[in-house]
Formats: sequence, C-alpha cells, structure tokens
Amino acid sequence: MEHLFLDPKNLPAWLDLERLAAQPFDLTDPASLAGQRIADYRCRSASFKLLYATQRADNSTLTALRELADQSGAIKQFLMMKQGATMNRISGFPSENRQVLHTASRDLFRETPDHPEATAQARRECEKLKSFLDDLDHGRLTNAKGEPFTDLINIGIGGSDLGPRATYLALRAYRQGQRRVHFISNVDPDDARAILADLDLSRTLANVVSKSGTTLETLTNEELVRTAYLRAGLDPRRHFLAVTGQGSPMDNQDNYLRSFYMFDYIGGRYSTTSMVGGVLLAFALGYENFLEFLRGAHAIDLAAENPDLDRNIPLLLALLGIWNRNFLGHQTLAILPYSQALVRFVAHLQQCDMESNGKSVTRLGSPVRHQTGPIVWGEPGTNGQHAFYQLLHQGTTIVPAEFIGFDQSQYGEDQEIKGSSSQEKLVANLLAQTLALAVGKADGNPNRAFAGNRPSSLLLAKRLTPRTMGELLSIYENKIAFQGFVWNINSFDQEGVQLGKVLAQDLLPVLVDQHRGQGLQTPGNILHRAIVEAAATEEP
Amino acid sequence: MEHLFLDPKNLPAWLDLERLAAQPFDLTDPASLAGQRIADYRCRSASFKLLYATQRADNSTLTALRELADQSGAIKQFLMMKQGATMNRISGFPSENRQVLHTASRDLFRETPDHPEATAQARRECEKLKSFLDDLDHGRLTNAKGEPFTDLINIGIGGSDLGPRATYLALRAYRQGQRRVHFISNVDPDDARAILADLDLSRTLANVVSKSGTTLETLTNEELVRTAYLRAGLDPRRHFLAVTGQGSPMDNQDNYLRSFYMFDYIGGRYSTTSMVGGVLLAFALGYENFLEFLRGAHAIDLAAENPDLDRNIPLLLALLGIWNRNFLGHQTLAILPYSQALVRFVAHLQQCDMESNGKSVTRLGSPVRHQTGPIVWGEPGTNGQHAFYQLLHQGTTIVPAEFIGFDQSQYGEDQEIKGSSSQEKLVANLLAQTLALAVGKADGNPNRAFAGNRPSSLLLAKRLTPRTMGELLSIYENKIAFQGFVWNINSFDQEGVQLGKVLAQDLLPVLVDQHRGQGLQTPGNILHRAIVEAAATEEP
Repeated sequence: MEHLFLDPKNLPAWLDLERLAAQPFDLTDPASLAGQRIADYRCRSASFKLLYATQRADNSTLTALRELADQSGAIKQFLMMKQGATMNRISGFPSENRQVLHTASRDLFRETPDHPEATAQARRECEKLKSFLDDLDHGRLTNAKGEPFTDLINIGIGGSDLGPRATYLALRAYRQGQRRVHFISNVDPDDARAILADLDLSRTLANVVSKSGTTLETLTNEELVRTAYLRAGLDPRRHFLAVTGQGSPMDNQDNYLRSFYMFDYIGGRYSTTSMVGGVLLAFALGYENFLEFLRGAHAIDLAAENPDLDRNIPLLLALLGIWNRNFLGHQTLAILPYSQALVRFVAHLQQCDMESNGKSVTRLGSPVRHQTGPIVWGEPGTNGQHAFYQLLHQGTTIVPAEFIGFDQSQYGEDQEIKGSSSQEKLVANLLAQTLALAVGKADGNPNRAFAGNRPSSLLLAKRLTPRTMGELLSIYENKIAFQGFVWNINSFDQEGVQLGKVLAQDLLPVLVDQHRGQGLQTPGNILHRAIVEAAATEEP
Repeated sequence: MEHLFLDPKNLPAWLDLERLAAQPFDLTDPASLAGQRIADYRCRSASFKLLYATQRADNSTLTALRELADQSGAIKQFLMMKQGATMNRISGFPSENRQVLHTASRDLFRETPDHPEATAQARRECEKLKSFLDDLDHGRLTNAKGEPFTDLINIGIGGSDLGPRATYLALRAYRQGQRRVHFISNVDPDDARAILADLDLSRTLANVVSKSGTTLETLTNEELVRTAYLRAGLDPRRHFLAVTGQGSPMDNQDNYLRSFYMFDYIGGRYSTTSMVGGVLLAFALGYENFLEFLRGAHAIDLAAENPDLDRNIPLLLALLGIWNRNFLGHQTLAILPYSQALVRFVAHLQQCDMESNGKSVTRLGSPVRHQTGPIVWGEPGTNGQHAFYQLLHQGTTIVPAEFIGFDQSQYGEDQEIKGSSSQEKLVANLLAQTLALAVGKADGNPNRAFAGNRPSSLLLAKRLTPRTMGELLSIYENKIAFQGFVWNINSFDQEGVQLGKVLAQDLLPVLVDQHRGQGLQTPGNILHRAIVEAAATEEP
C-alpha cells in the first residue's frame, strides 16, 4: 500500500496550485461573480447541493484540484478503506495498525456490501437494538414498578459523546413519545450533579459508552451515577446499558441490562453510526428513524466514490479546503449552520476534523512539509452574525467559511411578520452573508468599507431530517478522510492525546497530597511539585 | 484625546519586542521551566491567580511588554473610559461617537464612583429590579390564577443572549427555588418551537431584550412567543418584561408588565452586568447573588487600574496575548475552562473579543499596520482533551491557550474513585495539559513525539461562585479593552455587521417570491436573483 503514501508536494498538481495561488480569483471584481458562475459552480450528492461560486477558485484551479485528487489516489484510497485495508497505521513504526470501517456500520442496504464481515457484525448489533426497542415499546422491559422508561443518560466522552449528542439535538423534532436523552461527559463532578438533580432515576436508563472500557472520565461518571441509583433504592442492573468493545473490562453482562458491541476498526470520532450513536438515537427517535439516518450516511458513502467532481460533495469540499489551507494560507475554518438544531454539530466536527488531521507526521513517519488540518470552529447563524461575524468581515485574518442551510424548518410552525416568515428571513441572511463576504463594499468611511474576497461555500438541502442528518455527517467524515489521504497523514489515530494523559497520572498523587494538606510527600519531579504548589490558593 | 491614539508600531517597545521575538524563550530546554520560574511567574487580582510560566516570555519580554503598556497609555485610556470619555469613535469620520460606561453598571459599592451619573442610572434600575423581585418573592406579582412564576424565557440575540446565558449556566448551582431560565435567540423558527414545546406558559415570564428595540430576530421571536401566549389563553401583558433603551420603539409600558432600561453608553457585548443580564440572573439566583456578581466585576475594574503588572491580571493577559498575536504570529486563541458550568462562556468571549477587536482600521481612520484580534474558540476540559487537543499537541499550527480552573467544585458532591476525587482528577488534567504543551517529549517513534513550546496560561480561583464569575467576566472585558487601546482600534463599535444586514434586506423579497412560486418578479440585482435561483432545491 506504501505506493499510495505519496508526498503531495511532489505531485505535479501541487506545483500548479502553488503557481495559481499567486493570483487567486478576485471575487470583488464586478464582472467576476456573475449569475452564470453562481449557476455553474454547483455540485450535488444525494439530497445536498454545494454552491461554491464564492470560493476564490476558477476553472484552472478546479482542474488542478481534480488532478491533485487523481494524482494522490484519493478515491482509490477511500475505496481501499471501505474494503478493509489497514489505513490506520504509520509505515515502519509501531502504530494502531487497524482497519477503518465506520462506513460498514451503515452499508446495510445492498446485497454486496464493501466489507461483508464488518457489515454482518453491524447488522447483528442492529438486530439486538431493534429487539431491545421492541421490548421497551411493548412493555416487556420496564422499571421495577412496571413503568416505561422515559429518559436515558448517556455516559461517554469525546467520540462517545459529541457525535451522538450533536445528532440527538439535531433531530429532537423527530422524537417519539417525548423520550429524552441527557449527557454526562466531563470528569468535572458538577456535570453529573447538574444532570442528576433534575431526573426521576426510576424511569431513567443509563447508557455507558467506552470502546476500551477503560476511559477514566466515563468509568468515574459511571460510578457516580451507579451510586445515585443505589441511593435512590434502585438496582443499577435494571437500568444500565453498555456499549463497549468485545472483551473489554466493561464487557460483563452481569452488570448491564443489555450490552452492545463496537469494534476496533471504528474510531471513536467516526462511531456515531455504530451502536455508540445507535442506542440513544433509536431510543429517542425510534428504530426506523435511526435506519433513515444510516441510509443517509450510506448514500453519501456511495457518492464519495464518484470520480465526477460535480457529483461528489465530500471530495470537492476536501479539495476546496486544501486550496484555502495550503495555497491561500488560511489557518482556520468556520462552519456556520443556519439551523439552531445544529447547535452542537460544529463541536462534533471540531473533534472529528482536528483529532483526525491535526498531525505533523506522514504515513511514512517523516515530518510533513505542508500544513495539515485547520482549526475548525463556529456557531449557528443568525446568532453568530450578532457575535463574531465582525471579525469575519473586517478582521485582519481571513477565515474561510462553510455555511449550511435548509429551505424549510423542522417543525413547520412559523409566522409571517412584515411580509416574510422566520425561515425566509433565516435563509435570506444565510445567502446574504456569503455574498457580503465575497464581494465586499467600498466606502468613503474607511471604518464602513469591506475588503471582500473572503471565501465561503454553501451546503444546502430541503430540510434537516434523520436522512439528511446522516448525509451531512457522512459528507464531513468523508471530507476529512479525503484530506488526510491527500495530505498523506494518518487521519485515524490520536497519539497526540497521550502525553497529557501520562502527565495527569503522574501529577494526580502530588495534587492529592497537597490538596489534603499532607504537604508534598509523594515522590514526583520538581516540575510537578512546582506547578501544584503554585496552583494552590494561598497568596503568592 | 487624539494624542493617545498612537500607532503601536511607532512605539520603541514594539521594536524591542520584534527583536526579542526572533528568539523567544524556549520552554523545552530542561533548564528553563524550573520550579522557581513557575513560582515567580504569577500574578494576582481579587480572587484570581494567573500562572504564566508556560508562556514563551522571559524577563526581557515582560519588561518590553510593560513598556508597551506604558508607551501606549493603556491604563490611562482605561481610566478615561471609566470616567466617561468618548472612546467609541473614529476620529475624523462619522462613527457611533459614544461613551463606554459598562464599568459604571457595577460601580455601586463606593461613595465616589468614576462616573456618578451613569452609576446613579444603574442604581435606579437595580432598585426597580429589587422591587420587582420582592413582588415576585412575596406573592404580590403572580399569574392570573395567583400562582408564582417558575420560569423565564429570555428573548434576545448577540449581547442580549450570550453573556447572560453563559453566566446563568455558570451559576445554575446557586439557583433559588429552582427557578429556570430558557433562551430564544435565533430567527430560526425551530429555536422558539423547541423551547415553547416543553413549557407551561401560564407560569412563565418572557423577558424581551433589545437596546434599539428594532433587532429583527428579537422582534420576530417576541411576536412568535406572544402568539403562543394568546393561543394558550394568556394575556401577554401579565407575562412580558422589557429591557430596552429609553425612547426605543419597545419602550411602551402598556405592552409590558415591567420595563428596565439600558443605556447608549453600554455596548451589547459588554452589557451582562447591566439589566440585560440583571433581570434573568436576579430572577434565577436572587438579587443578592446578582449583587455579588457585580461586586466581583467591580473588584476587577479596580484591579485593572493597578500599574503593578503582578497585580493586574487583565492587563497582563492582554499583553501576553499581544506577544503571541503580533510577535510570535499566532492567529487564534483557545480558551479552555476546566469547569462544565462554563460550557457557554467561551461562546460569549468569542463574541466579546472578536466583535470588539476584529477590526482593521485605526481610531484615526487609517488601515492598521499590524494584526488585531485573534480568532477565539474553545470548549471545556476534560471534554476537549478527547476532541481537538490532538491538534493542539501535534498539529502544524500552534494555538496559544488560556486555561481556567477551580480548586473546588460547585456542588461539593464528589466521590473518591481509585484514590482521588473527580475534582482532583479534573485539576490534575488541567495542570498536566499546560505542562505537556510547554515541555513536549522526544520519542524514537516520530508519531509519538511532541515538539512542545506551545504557550499557555492558567487562570485559577478557589471556586466558581457569583462573585468569581463576575471577576472572570470583568477580567476578559478589560483584557479586550486593553488590547484595543494598545492596537489603537475602536473596540466598541461593530460596523462590520452592517453589510450583511443590508444585503439580507435586499435579498428577502427576491427569496420570498421565489419561495412562494411567484417566479422572480421582484426587482433585484442579478447577483441576488442568481444566488436565490441557485439555492432553490431543484436539480442543477
């Protein structure tokens, strides 16, 4: 496989792009952002459309980007990934050395999936989930008093929290029977207390999610929550569910009402379409809505194979991102959904993108010679317009943006005020921002002038539903993987989180001693002692 | 006042700093991060302590930064601001031309406030608030059935949403009588629907907040919510409160149960300590807790006058930020609170900082010759450790970080698991991260090596309370103002949000026609029509 681990700076298209970047397309020229360009610079995959006329790219740029994708074998690597190649590794060095098969968890809708074995495993878990929900729905599974469960607490962190949480919030409008999901993630004890304070535990399930079964925060919170159940006179075994790897320390059926498996070949941040997201989403939205979500993700997994760039949103988004990051030199990416339901989706993408592509070593173990993943951030519009958009329009640093919008609202309940509905106002604002950033405005008052030439794209669909949410998630998962393939980095490990963990373990006994007034008796190196002492609250 | 509007690049200290930046302090040298340095590089203001040994700054850097503050008259400008100088202006051009007196809204605790008139106005509003709360608490103000109000919906956006929301979430542990606050901000109609779905409106107050009384999103949401009350057979005049400017279109006592005033000289993003935050915070936390919050903010307003850099956290934070932004060239700033209660505080700071300092014109109307406000982002730890910290440790872009932590939890309910409490684990992780980023780690496996030299600070207090929350807010408000003073920009206007507003108004009729199947009859320029047509959902 190493023949595909190519340094992108050695590819002819990379040199072409460097040349083109000396004079990027000028969006402020009145002739340049014509109607025909807006109509032409469109791409479609499944239910989504991408409008990208407001990027600083012209036909030459797009040709060179297409060649970059070809020369780096981006789609070829994507197919290999889906078929089970060991893409999670660093050649020549110890690494996770795993397959990357989150796509298999939604490849349930055709006779010949890309990786039959992984899909069969996913199907088995889905069947278990369906049977669990049937038992809940038909009153075969109740609390000790025979009452139905109305709430579920999800206990997980990182990949076992952000994607599932973002998706649940995005789809709350589709809840069945008003079932509610709550989330405890942080080791901060106040996180658990604030959630537990408002719940009737007797009617609440607790879903503990950790692939390794050893995640510090999750095990700690599981203990806190188990204690709360016991104090309430409830038997945790009637309430606790587990989602974990087979054979992990948590894989102990005696402790849990039901257990679901996740697999080594699915990374935490790519696990929303596995049982990690599945249990809570199916609980809240119903099994059929969960399947619709998977159907949407799968549709995009197929679209991402399309060599026609006009029909492959994930690849095109990846390439435009590379253009902005590596050639126009922008360090960040704002993702700006015009949908309040997507309020935590950007936090999930922040994880998925930055943990995947915040790397500086190639898959051959040498330092990268180019920039890798950008800093991803953002908040829903129109809220952001009243917050940080000032800097987007007039700051000294240019921030490329990806806008996300929908033609219709979820609830369909709206009101016409001054000749337009709220949803129409929302969409008008979305379209206006992309134009304003691009074209700018001259003004005799320098403080009221806008330089323009701030690139953005628009990702649009009719409505945010379980299906389009699955598509949206998959667009970004695949975009991120494509960027990693081109950048020749391993987008599927996270070695960069290890050092902090190790240091925290070393510091903890020093801190506990100091905190409990026992001085600093514990052996510990001078740095640990110094920072613990300095952090102590006495007057410096 | 123009004699204080100095171009920082002309200051001698700026040149010194440019020279020093060629060889910034090396945190990875085993000799450099000694215990003494950690002990020495501490600053204290009110209840907070700032540890900054893990910045790439040494004594020469600090001397030059201190001189930069002196030469730019940072503290002098801050005092002028508090005393009512017209700091919100661009010399020689039309501008807002206003005083900047948010500090007066908390200058309630001494006989001779800096601006007696503004403080007298603030005090009058506080008295009105106190009397309103007394009426609620003693049953003189109830719903039509004589029942107490248990909930409040805050309807506002931007400054009328983010700061109040972040503060409410930060202090929920201190609620009195389980009163709850909900927030509707986005013009997305689903935002209002999702909130209204779960509320008993008969026991709910609605607080409408808009200084101008003309904010599109807020007036639209007010209408949506009024309609919901009417449909529920409730009289909105028994439920609706207003916070607005005197004489604004919303200043109509017939429509509201009670009205509170905010003033022209307080910008939206600096208004949390005015009635904008006051009404909902006092409703939820009680009037005394709100006063404590103001007391904390005021204590830092005093500390920010201190010329001793070891006693002035806001100024030191501002200067270290300038060092990272202008001299070490970092474009972003991660703010990472190790407290789940601060879950939305960074979104507020993102607004406060980026809307204030995302500018490219000096106060004399010429283009700035240096970088201004960074991109501010972040999420609470330890959650972030399982999300984007990979990039912080091993990405190709260096991200300076400001950590925030507390020695004790809010609820004080915790559990010892494997020899340490959750709170101790939380703090150990916080301290470990700042060390890991700074010192790095060599490793034979390049994918497991850490370059280090990634700068951060630690902001620490004993516990997050109404008082320390007020301090924390004020630390950042004043930090941002100090940076604007040094950068010679107007941190108090937001002309950059105007163009998008104007374009949205132009686009709206085009969109409404298209959306309602009436073709594109409305006159509108070609760009508007093109983007609306391209965004329409038919196949491209």
